[in-house]
Amino acid sequence: MKPVIAIHGGAGTITRAALNADQEQDYLDALDYVLLGGQSILEKGGSALDAVTEAVLRLEDCPLFNAGKGAVFTHAGTHELDASIMDGRTLAAGAVACVKSLRNPIRAARAVMENGRHVLLVGEGAEAFARQAELETVPSDYYFTVARHDQWLRALADGASNLLDHDAQSRMTETAPIDPDTKMGTVGAVALDAQGNLAAATSTGGVTDKRVGRVGDSPLIGAGCYANNRTAAVSCTGSGEMFIRMLAAYDVSAMMEYRGLSLDEACRAVVMDKLPTIEGRGGLIAVDAQGNVRLTFNTEGMYRGHAYAGGPRQTAIYR
Amino acid sequence: MKPVIAIHGGAGTITRAALNADQEQDYLDALDYVLLGGQSILEKGGSALDAVTEAVLRLEDCPLFNAGKGAVFTHAGTHELDASIMDGRTLAAGAVACVKSLRNPIRAARAVMENGRHVLLVGEGAEAFARQAELETVPSDYYFTVARHDQWLRALADGASNLLDHDAQSRMTETAPIDPDTKMGTVGAVALDAQGNLAAATSTGGVTDKRVGRVGDSPLIGAGCYANNRTAAVSCTGSGEMFIRMLAAYDVSAMMEYRGLSLDEACRAVVMDKLPTIEGRGGLIAVDAQGNVRLTFNTEGMYRGHAYAGGPRQTAIYR
Repeated sequence: MKPVIAIHGGAGTITRAALNADQEQDYLDALDYVLLGGQSILEKGGSALDAVTEAVLRLEDCPLFNAGKGAVFTHAGTHELDASIMDGRTLAAGAVACVKSLRNPIRAARAVMENGRHVLLVGEGAEAFARQAELETVPSDYYFTVARHDQWLRALADGASNLLDHDAQSRMTETAPIDPDTKMGTVGAVALDAQGNLAAATSTGGVTDKRVGRVGDSPLIGAGCYANNRTAAVSCTGSGEMFIRMLAAYDVSAMMEYRGLSLDEACRAVVMDKLPTIEGRGGLIAVDAQGNVRLTFNTEGMYRGHAYAGGPRQTAIYR
Repeated sequence: MKPVIAIHGGAGTITRAALNADQEQDYLDALDYVLLGGQSILEKGGSALDAVTEAVLRLEDCPLFNAGKGAVFTHAGTHELDASIMDGRTLAAGAVACVKSLRNPIRAARAVMENGRHVLLVGEGAEAFARQAELETVPSDYYFTVARHDQWLRALADGASNLLDHDAQSRMTETAPIDPDTKMGTVGAVALDAQGNLAAATSTGGVTDKRVGRVGDSPLIGAGCYANNRTAAVSCTGSGEMFIRMLAAYDVSAMMEYRGLSLDEACRAVVMDKLPTIEGRGGLIAVDAQGNVRLTFNTEGMYRGHAYAGGPRQTAIYR
């Protein structure tokens, strides 16, 4: 059993045709840098919780991904961010939703977990808690990126209510038809540490042009994030509403615990069999207590990577 | 298979010594009236969704229960309400959290579900949605009841951060010690209709003196509310954070589907075995596709009742 970390930066209609060589390399470099952060912690004997926190911090700070800086715009032209974290050893969990002024929502989620009184704080109450915890706040224009702003303007012009995050065609040409069912864009990390503890963390800016106040699966324990030392740590990305209705993250764990499935079988059952029955699109990353890793998705691509302690960092985008 | 509805009005330290005969009768009468609403719909061939909606509407409108009118106070002296509903036939779901001006949060949850675009809306975004749906709004003093206000004042004076909702001693004497681990107060309903469809609904004012922005299990699909025609409909009440971490409502369904447990076995496993491992206190009501009903709790009491179509309405409070 070797410590290991896996990460994702969202799933969707990501095809080879959609990214040019420079863009592709930018994503792979970013994923490598994120993995390095978590891997280094694990190699020094650090905890799975610290490794997933560091990886998600780096994903939030990178403007390429839809979380923290680079978050998508709501219908109102604002940003509302969600994040969650779970400790597989204790089943402790923390999450925030609809925060607008925090540089790193994952830090707030972790502070909620460590405070221990509540699991989920939303909106201004979550921000007041984060200020008390002396977490870094940013002005709303911190989140701004040209790419996300253009995406939002196209969504408004299109009148389509949910512009996809990683829709390849919309990135290639502004006149291409938009697939309204592609709504992905989340980041996450799962890890197993040398003590045998599992942890998971997830963070997102949500769906482009989303209704103000909409909360997806990312900050919901069991939907977009789950960790349990008895089974697995899981972080999801995809059409959030379907992942909520399927309890996608917990379902991987439940199938392992109650049906005796392997990690691979459970991930495939959730992503390939169950989610499609309600048109759920996306993927998940998972690691079990034996250090097995799965990065499973039913879309054209998922920004992803994994690395064992002392091993090579492996990153990928397409199927 | 006969249509059936079950309801709860919260679980906690509710003992015979805590309620005088008049109070007890008030609760039993209220539960009977709530059951009657759901039962009548089922007897006319109405849907499980309509039956649970009507039952929760009545629970929200009754000042005796911590939902809608009669909701507890936050630390700031405000009210923040949460509700959810799920359709076992389609796995469609809707929920709202942290709403402050809606007479019946369950109507908003149902409108979110029927709208179909999102599952969970929170805060002002949820209220804006409800106004568009032309749902009834109320001034904040609508929720006020002397009993809840006194409870809040005692919590503030005590400095204890989570006053229990149904703590018997606090109702008997203001100087009695307050058990900080008793944090229940939720309403809910589950039903099976003549078409074989299951539905669940849950609503709450949360925890007395809760932090602004705190969201418990009630509006979270799989935590405080779940329905699936293949297994069961479940509505929970208890120490919300533990029900979130355990995915209590979905776990009943997962144990039935994946381990082949009966409804009774699954309810007991979740409430009596799993929740206590993380000090989770409370209970749940559940009905399966065959019309079996369970009202399971690990506290001293739970306001509860159930009624089959054409049968007597049965209500109870204590163990």
